[in-house]
Amino acid sequence: MSFGIAIGARVRKSPYFDKTIEDGVSAFSVYNHMYMPTSYGDAAAEYDRLINGVAMWDVAVERQVSLKGSDAEKLARYLTPRELGALNIGQGRYVPLCDHRGTLINDPVLLPLSEDECWLSIADSDVMLFARAIAAERGYNVSIHEPDVSPLAIQGPKAVEVVADLFGDWIRGLKYFGYRETTLNGIPLHVARSGWSKQGGYELYLTDGSRGGELWDLVKEAGKPYDIGPGTPNYIERLESGLVSYGADTDDFTNPYEIGLGKFVSLSREDDFIGKKALTQIHADGIKRQFVGYKIEGEPLSAGNQHKLPVKNNESHVGFVSASGWSPRVKSNIGVGLIEAAFSEPGTKVTIQTDTSDGDLTATISKLPFDIA
Amino acid sequence: MSFGIAIGARVRKSPYFDKTIEDGVSAFSVYNHMYMPTSYGDAAAEYDRLINGVAMWDVAVERQVSLKGSDAEKLARYLTPRELGALNIGQGRYVPLCDHRGTLINDPVLLPLSEDECWLSIADSDVMLFARAIAAERGYNVSIHEPDVSPLAIQGPKAVEVVADLFGDWIRGLKYFGYRETTLNGIPLHVARSGWSKQGGYELYLTDGSRGGELWDLVKEAGKPYDIGPGTPNYIERLESGLVSYGADTDDFTNPYEIGLGKFVSLSREDDFIGKKALTQIHADGIKRQFVGYKIEGEPLSAGNQHKLPVKNNESHVGFVSASGWSPRVKSNIGVGLIEAAFSEPGTKVTIQTDTSDGDLTATISKLPFDIA
Repeated sequence: MSFGIAIGARVRKSPYFDKTIEDGVSAFSVYNHMYMPTSYGDAAAEYDRLINGVAMWDVAVERQVSLKGSDAEKLARYLTPRELGALNIGQGRYVPLCDHRGTLINDPVLLPLSEDECWLSIADSDVMLFARAIAAERGYNVSIHEPDVSPLAIQGPKAVEVVADLFGDWIRGLKYFGYRETTLNGIPLHVARSGWSKQGGYELYLTDGSRGGELWDLVKEAGKPYDIGPGTPNYIERLESGLVSYGADTDDFTNPYEIGLGKFVSLSREDDFIGKKALTQIHADGIKRQFVGYKIEGEPLSAGNQHKLPVKNNESHVGFVSASGWSPRVKSNIGVGLIEAAFSEPGTKVTIQTDTSDGDLTATISKLPFDIA
Repeated sequence: MSFGIAIGARVRKSPYFDKTIEDGVSAFSVYNHMYMPTSYGDAAAEYDRLINGVAMWDVAVERQVSLKGSDAEKLARYLTPRELGALNIGQGRYVPLCDHRGTLINDPVLLPLSEDECWLSIADSDVMLFARAIAAERGYNVSIHEPDVSPLAIQGPKAVEVVADLFGDWIRGLKYFGYRETTLNGIPLHVARSGWSKQGGYELYLTDGSRGGELWDLVKEAGKPYDIGPGTPNYIERLESGLVSYGADTDDFTNPYEIGLGKFVSLSREDDFIGKKALTQIHADGIKRQFVGYKIEGEPLSAGNQHKLPVKNNESHVGFVSASGWSPRVKSNIGVGLIEAAFSEPGTKVTIQTDTSDGDLTATISKLPFDIA
């Protein structure tokens, strides 16, 4: 199946949009009300670049929600179940967010910028609306808006060389989720050690959208000695690495414990946070489902199931596969998804009902990340 | 420019998804985290069906947010600046929603279902997250979720005949936004007199997603004598009719007064509602921008500007065009968008900076809806 995407002014465009077109983008999705490149037409080359070389990704869809004001930090702490301890400017933190029911509603990175401002670098849901409702109802002194910030990711084992050539060797000393404000040829940005892969890399948080084209060209030029090429958040690598994709892997009842984020929930925190009561109850009741890997038998599957695939034990529905495809490194079909806790032990056999002529396939539960063969 | 859309399990599929493919859908966008058909490849035929005949649209993306519990009505009243008076089961109401800053965050239809439940039939933003935050922080006794409800629109002057043939002549007596729960061949649904066009029509709110294919086929069969065919929310007709498209026409500073929805703001209400203080101030300060029509000179434009187009007076930026194209009925290029109040008077001349080889074009401000020639 192949369909076009409507391009118009309702869905927002990245500052790198025109450049991705010049570089041959072939497909988009929509994420945070913005076009997100998903393919440049050669999945094997894009995967290879990420695993063995270096790729540049337009991830401007990773929008920032700025919390600014004397209660910004107070709001950030109330929004997440994680115990943040001292916040350090220049060091980001992964902060799952829940609603009052204990359901995961986003899993951003928190970037403390100053005493009275931080950003939440979000996945695909309207965190800004949620945070504004909370702040206003609680009378917090904080203004919440989406600043002009558009990340460009440089990912893969050679990313560090490209970024060091651009900014200097200091970037090698950044810790994971560490970042620093700087400029490149006068273009304002933050360099962060981050990105949605386990292959290592950086994200350039451009803070002047009018200069996206310039930044794209500078990165492309600096990457030439390393054979840089365009790419997108990678469908197969994220499965291999067991990264959670909010919205794909989660539903309206997914709590952090189910999805492997229990370690970020601090029920022992003395201060209150959204979902504390519900999460305490969920924890006491025990986990009903768990996020697992599936090793799936059979001929190589084409990447990307169209629907969530039902997982069965005998004839009972016990879970689903949210994403699946052939992994060149695991040398097997693999997938991820939620399954009832009773079936989540690695080694357990289940049946996956594909939505293609592949029919029913046997799968074995695997820990995440997968072992690379 | 023509690009593919990534089809996968992260973005949700409508219960009519497979049927739209059978019927030749050629392009999608994403709306409320769900695929939305935007074209069947023949814009002229789709427009003609809507204006002169009858079309069926998959608008399952028009998701419902159910408010259920003893405080459901209290929450609904607090969420909207509109004075609702008595709510009547079976009669929907258009209820713009604002945040505490007075910015429009959605413009749903409210459907009261019972003493303790109503639905908000929403445009493209996560109203569910916002409503949950409000309800939880205020301690309201209400549960908020997205039910299994997927509207199928039947639009155009002959829609009434198709719907009467399916359900009986009682549907002719429904008032605008009126609805009734019923079944069709055992398929549960609500029939509503509504739809995102001014050509008249109905929406079938299917309440069992597993029966979407059946419903699609029944409507298609019943529509045959009237030459029904597939369509989508229509880009040109909505311009002619001056319908607001939330997200396309609005930004993060758009208040209801600017966008022609001031009549739904009741500052004199005795009870409190979200944004009351901000809207009172905005009203006292006077409107800075206004939603207007543009009659644009020059050769017929291809429908659909890619970006919001800047509107200039001499060299000053004074507004933008959010959507534009050739109208066969106005017999002119037309557009809609926000412009500074000083330039909003019908007849005012401005310059529109297109993003194509059409260059700068002269336009005249027009009232909405446009006069049909």
